Amino acid sequence: MEAPYEDALAELMISYHELNGTVIDELTEEPSPLEFMRYAARNTPFVVRGAALDWEATQTWSVDYLKAVLGDDPVNIAVTPAGNADAPTPYTHPDGTTSLVFAKPHEEDQPFSSFLDYLIDQEKHRPQRAPAEVRYAQTQNDNLRNEYSLLYPQVPRTIPWARVALGARDADAVNLWIGGARSVTALHRDNYENVYVQIRGRKHFVLLPPACVAAVNEVELRPGRYRRRRGKAEKRDGDGDGEPEPEPEPEPEPEPQVGPDLDPDLDLELELEDGPSVPFAIWDPDKPDVNATRYSRLAQPMRVTLNPGDMLYLPCMWYHKVSQSSSPEGVCIAVNYWYDMEFSGALYPLTTFVRTVAGKTK
Amino acid sequence: MEAPYEDALAELMISYHELNGTVIDELTEEPSPLEFMRYAARNTPFVVRGAALDWEATQTWSVDYLKAVLGDDPVNIAVTPAGNADAPTPYTHPDGTTSLVFAKPHEEDQPFSSFLDYLIDQEKHRPQRAPAEVRYAQTQNDNLRNEYSLLYPQVPRTIPWARVALGARDADAVNLWIGGARSVTALHRDNYENVYVQIRGRKHFVLLPPACVAAVNEVELRPGRYRRRRGKAEKRDGDGDGEPEPEPEPEPEPEPQVGPDLDPDLDLELELEDGPSVPFAIWDPDKPDVNATRYSRLAQPMRVTLNPGDMLYLPCMWYHKVSQSSSPEGVCIAVNYWYDMEFSGALYPLTTFVRTVAGKTK
Ligand SMILES: O=C(O)CCC(=O)C(=O)O
Ligand SMILES: O=C(O)CCC(=O)C(=O)O
Repeated sequence: MEAPYEDALAELMISYHELNGTVIDELTEEPSPLEFMRYAARNTPFVVRGAALDWEATQTWSVDYLKAVLGDDPVNIAVTPAGNADAPTPYTHPDGTTSLVFAKPHEEDQPFSSFLDYLIDQEKHRPQRAPAEVRYAQTQNDNLRNEYSLLYPQVPRTIPWARVALGARDADAVNLWIGGARSVTALHRDNYENVYVQIRGRKHFVLLPPACVAAVNEVELRPGRYRRRRGKAEKRDGDGDGEPEPEPEPEPEPEPQVGPDLDPDLDLELELEDGPSVPFAIWDPDKPDVNATRYSRLAQPMRVTLNPGDMLYLPCMWYHKVSQSSSPEGVCIAVNYWYDMEFSGALYPLTTFVRTVAGKTK
Repeated sequence: MEAPYEDALAELMISYHELNGTVIDELTEEPSPLEFMRYAARNTPFVVRGAALDWEATQTWSVDYLKAVLGDDPVNIAVTPAGNADAPTPYTHPDGTTSLVFAKPHEEDQPFSSFLDYLIDQEKHRPQRAPAEVRYAQTQNDNLRNEYSLLYPQVPRTIPWARVALGARDADAVNLWIGGARSVTALHRDNYENVYVQIRGRKHFVLLPPACVAAVNEVELRPGRYRRRRGKAEKRDGDGDGEPEPEPEPEPEPEPQVGPDLDPDLDLELELEDGPSVPFAIWDPDKPDVNATRYSRLAQPMRVTLNPGDMLYLPCMWYHKVSQSSSPEGVCIAVNYWYDMEFSGALYPLTTFVRTVAGKTK
């Protein structure tokens, strides 16, 4: 039986798209603070083509330059079998049943230059060979002002029109992203105003407004994390009691299933983690028939590809899925600025309301 | 049985008030376009005390001055028995049953000076005498640039910060309001950004954000209109067939009931009108127990009184109830500027969604 509010959710998506269209606004120059504020007020994205072409970063960040600056400094790297850091991923339980978990990457420090060499090697040669593990520098913890602070002087400290418009608050985080074509950031939302700037390679954004929450199938996922296996022979201590478990009989323990790209020789294993479950979208606009809700077909995702020097305003609470193409040198590099969003006013509580109602239709 | 979305409506109202408070922001000077845009983005009202004290209107609009300028020019006046123009009003049907209708005023042209004399006489002397009909110049059809265009040069053509912020669109309407303490504008909402400026006397606003729609009890009301009766002896033609109806027997036909202030000697009669029903709030924040919904008690109305020279930004879609106090000369005069609201973006579709869900809880 259809509950009456279901029609309302459908109406919302239809009218949102009717009123807003599904093509992103393209600006040829950076907006004034007031022009930006009109977009922020409408919670509407735009792209400014070429806005960062004159940034020192855009002009200097060749692979050689980056290696010269950072050398063998250790940097935090997200390691996954299939480029699926922070993504809903099937997990096979010891009893053979499977469920989706929120898979966090294995994180480890690697010397910057070796990380870059691995990435480039994979980008340039690996497609013809067997897949290997996927590495992505994506800490999103203000890393450009910390781990990568040697590079920070090559980008503006802040995006002036965003800072002025949003009330003279400085960026909450400035993040550097270095990855390759095999990494995909799964559809998710952030409670930040985001200015995203492409430096090398291309990023492909698929965007959905908060009004489309009923389409993305947000569910509670148990958290999991990839770990490097200590060796196949070593027994696993799945229940954490310090003693290896007896092998289940008569069936052999199944290998974890993380997706079609899984390399059986990888030494990464997905483990469940304790901790609260994570509400996460499990619908993928690029596989619209999988994990769909009855509203998914009403969603009209907005797509935009950023080329080097392009800048995207990604409004707070918008769902975004991000994939990448590498530069001729074999890397994809971007910088983004997160500014605090406005929780007072009407937008945040109204968006939360739609989310709650959408959650109750399940 | 409680439907699940009811909790969501309650949560919305509670979190809205928690995030926004219930006290209006008071500015000591007019905002810049960007400062204003931040309020518009949050859909949050503010008042600027004394902002229009230097307006020519504020300085010159004495009763004598207005009479000298407008003299006996005919002006459109809203006439009601109890100050209830455009208000939900009980209507007694010929069969004795009663229902609320949306009562529009009787409208007639009156010479400006006599209108003002009547108003002042009522304000200054009538409280001690029996109530009489209530007159209000409130056409809200851009009247200051039309009927009252002789007065238009004494106010700014536009509110610069609002015009610039909202994208160089000029005001859609500039309205003059001249009334007295017996007129009350019932709780309603407009799809306009409103800058409301007090010139003489005081206006008392009770404000509720769109997130509180479930509190205001919006229902579909049949439209009605007051008409001057042609004389008590004359038979009424209630069904519009051109023939007077036979008197109902055995009971005498009941007098229309318009409220406790009704003067039985008034010659105003409320008649049903053909035409579509009007969705209208029937909850009155000043009589919180009457016509309440189960959400009404969660609404925390914001109250603000405008003194001469004060300016209110009343964001689009906010519910407002307005009552008035007259100046020492016995008048209440205000001017307001309506600017087109933004229908694209998230706010309008999200607000419509809440309204739809609230409507389905009935
Ligand atoms: O670049 C990516 O892979 C993801 C970017 C992202 O999610 C963000 O900037 O919030
Ligand atoms: O001043 C009044 O009586 C009502 C004003 C109003 O409703 C408005 O400006 O929208």
